[in-house]
Amino acid sequence: MPDQRPEQSAEQSPFDLAEGDPFGPYTLPYGVFSTADTPGRRRIGVRFGRHVLDLGALPGALPAVVRAPHAELLAAPTLNPLLAAGRSVWQEVRAAIRAAVTDPAHRTAVTPLLRPLADVTLHLPFEVADYVDFYASEHHATNVGRIFRPNGAALPPNWKHLPIGYHGRSGTIVVTGTPVVRPNGQRKAPDDAAPTFGPSARLDIEAEVGFVVGTPSTLHEPVGLDGFRDHVFGVCLVNDWSARDIQAWEYVPLGPFLGKSFATSVSAWITPLDALDEARTQPPARDFPLLPYLDDSAGEAGGIDLRIEVSINGETVSRPPFSAMYWTAAQQLAHMTVNGASLRTGDLFASGTVSGPEPDQLGCLLELTQGKGPYLQDGDEVTLTAWAPGPDGARIGLGEVVGRVLPAPDLGR
Amino acid sequence: MPDQRPEQSAEQSPFDLAEGDPFGPYTLPYGVFSTADTPGRRRIGVRFGRHVLDLGALPGALPAVVRAPHAELLAAPTLNPLLAAGRSVWQEVRAAIRAAVTDPAHRTAVTPLLRPLADVTLHLPFEVADYVDFYASEHHATNVGRIFRPNGAALPPNWKHLPIGYHGRSGTIVVTGTPVVRPNGQRKAPDDAAPTFGPSARLDIEAEVGFVVGTPSTLHEPVGLDGFRDHVFGVCLVNDWSARDIQAWEYVPLGPFLGKSFATSVSAWITPLDALDEARTQPPARDFPLLPYLDDSAGEAGGIDLRIEVSINGETVSRPPFSAMYWTAAQQLAHMTVNGASLRTGDLFASGTVSGPEPDQLGCLLELTQGKGPYLQDGDEVTLTAWAPGPDGARIGLGEVVGRVLPAPDLGR
Repeated sequence: MPDQRPEQSAEQSPFDLAEGDPFGPYTLPYGVFSTADTPGRRRIGVRFGRHVLDLGALPGALPAVVRAPHAELLAAPTLNPLLAAGRSVWQEVRAAIRAAVTDPAHRTAVTPLLRPLADVTLHLPFEVADYVDFYASEHHATNVGRIFRPNGAALPPNWKHLPIGYHGRSGTIVVTGTPVVRPNGQRKAPDDAAPTFGPSARLDIEAEVGFVVGTPSTLHEPVGLDGFRDHVFGVCLVNDWSARDIQAWEYVPLGPFLGKSFATSVSAWITPLDALDEARTQPPARDFPLLPYLDDSAGEAGGIDLRIEVSINGETVSRPPFSAMYWTAAQQLAHMTVNGASLRTGDLFASGTVSGPEPDQLGCLLELTQGKGPYLQDGDEVTLTAWAPGPDGARIGLGEVVGRVLPAPDLGR
Repeated sequence: MPDQRPEQSAEQSPFDLAEGDPFGPYTLPYGVFSTADTPGRRRIGVRFGRHVLDLGALPGALPAVVRAPHAELLAAPTLNPLLAAGRSVWQEVRAAIRAAVTDPAHRTAVTPLLRPLADVTLHLPFEVADYVDFYASEHHATNVGRIFRPNGAALPPNWKHLPIGYHGRSGTIVVTGTPVVRPNGQRKAPDDAAPTFGPSARLDIEAEVGFVVGTPSTLHEPVGLDGFRDHVFGVCLVNDWSARDIQAWEYVPLGPFLGKSFATSVSAWITPLDALDEARTQPPARDFPLLPYLDDSAGEAGGIDLRIEVSINGETVSRPPFSAMYWTAAQQLAHMTVNGASLRTGDLFASGTVSGPEPDQLGCLLELTQGKGPYLQDGDEVTLTAWAPGPDGARIGLGEVVGRVLPAPDLGR
């Protein structure tokens, strides 16, 4: 009966997810979107399959499922109020959303709130407070140490005693899809007499996992290992774009600056920490005894079995395993606050480049090419994706991070 | 006639400033205050002598002087909206405030808006976006290099080619008067077999000058040397508290982290850049030719003749001259954005420790004691003050930064 609107009957229901879809009812990551009809109105949404559930409208559609006190949090234009609301609210809201998308009784009410992903524009989902970047992969740190400091020890002496980290630039954190303009800067090869200025010739990626702080902490009160779940809301993917030539010339003695501050891309979706319970795994054995504030030999397993994939122009170049990280996110949080520094809602801390032991598990081109290049060309598009094992064989997805390299501006100097 | 209310006749008028008062009509720095009767209500004020002019009330009191469009900016609870309004607004508002405090015709209207400094509580005057700390004193960098790296060159090879900087923690920037709790952390002497944990035994100060960004910039569009005045609103004093033992163990290879992230104190008053016109001075001669984006040999003199005084428990220990800084704030801003990184309203960048060539001009205890200590003891109170020459022999003051050291918390581990 070809006259009976075959387009509609062929169109899949939003509730019929593809086999293995990493954004099923066990994932439910949060983001911020707008639509073409009201481009200035940012709304919170949850990804479900190939659709976005309009969370701002959910309390009105399902008043018996979403409690009224949460309506204001879900109607905000960023995730920050929800992040600040604390773990018990996160759990309650998540349970309500899961009921909304899984209980057939709600299907009629929920269907109008589901918009195809293709019809929305995604935005940076939260206002970033402080951004800290760690250096937590032993494989990465060893490989980079050998390349940057060929005549010294690969790992600095502090590396296995504390998770090395540094502060990055919050103001240039951009959402997936934002083009990345090749930076200009100073660089100087060892044999050059003086530095020269121009576009970075060694533009690189760093595949990382980011942790988003929800509940703030109090100045002078460290957050211990067991405070991790109370303070961290969720997880995103991060591409910490790096200009290796600029970085190599500038980073001694105070660390990376312009080599990394031009852009840091994050996924549009924040996957709740609670979605990753099944993926918990023991971190690698530690070679040195840890000071008590970092000693996680008892308690919850701090590793996460996240499988990352890095592709450039559609071709997979690496599959870094997050489970191989020496330092866990809980250890990073404990370290970051042990001096009394406080956390704010919207703080983001990233793992550092994720690299595994194998040559096809390295998280940046510096390592993948053993320092020889080639690095990124103008026009290259880099995509990071990741998933973790979930309940019942489900996959738990992290939002993808895509960025395309645009040519450096000609500054005429 | 002792019965005729001698208290009142002895009380000085707010308009009778003491000889040499650095907060006269040429200074007029901005801050945020509250009062005991409405402690939750933060208001913008301008310091005038020993009083604070309530700026939120000024448009109502002097409608012919303060244009209506600016009333909303001045009624805000932080300086951020004023900072974002741009240079022409800053100049117009400043001219109106100067008229308000100098024209006798306005005295009756203005007097009720002047509150004694002793009656107000001062707050962090703006929401800090990104915080960057530079390392711009050749004397400081040389002295520290000799102490931290006795077997290497005092200055790293990049030092005279670019202003070295790094990102710090915005979330732990505190206003003057906030106690500074001694941080706990890891430290390891070279001869120790392993790091130990406990209160820093080498707590230090760093006397610095901070620059507050008003007008934001656009991603991918560098701000050149000549954009400095359009983007920078004003100047404050900064004490970048530093735990030298924690810093020494952690800072290779990615720079300072917990050794500095526990507290950074700033003055409560932001002195407008325009107040420092008379203090402009040529920076020291440069030893190497600079790349064009940093070359300030033509154009406005980039140095500022600010005379800083550091005192501990009331005793002056140093008088660092800001005019001796090798890199200027305009060069720092040009460098920070040359890779395309954007500025946000509320960005703060600090000069790095200000040290001059003489032994009584050093800006931290590490240098003042040649690395041998003693460092700060619990209970010590550190005060930074500074002034610059202004018109007609006037002094232009920066707000003081005071901080008292409290003992480290006992973390029981």
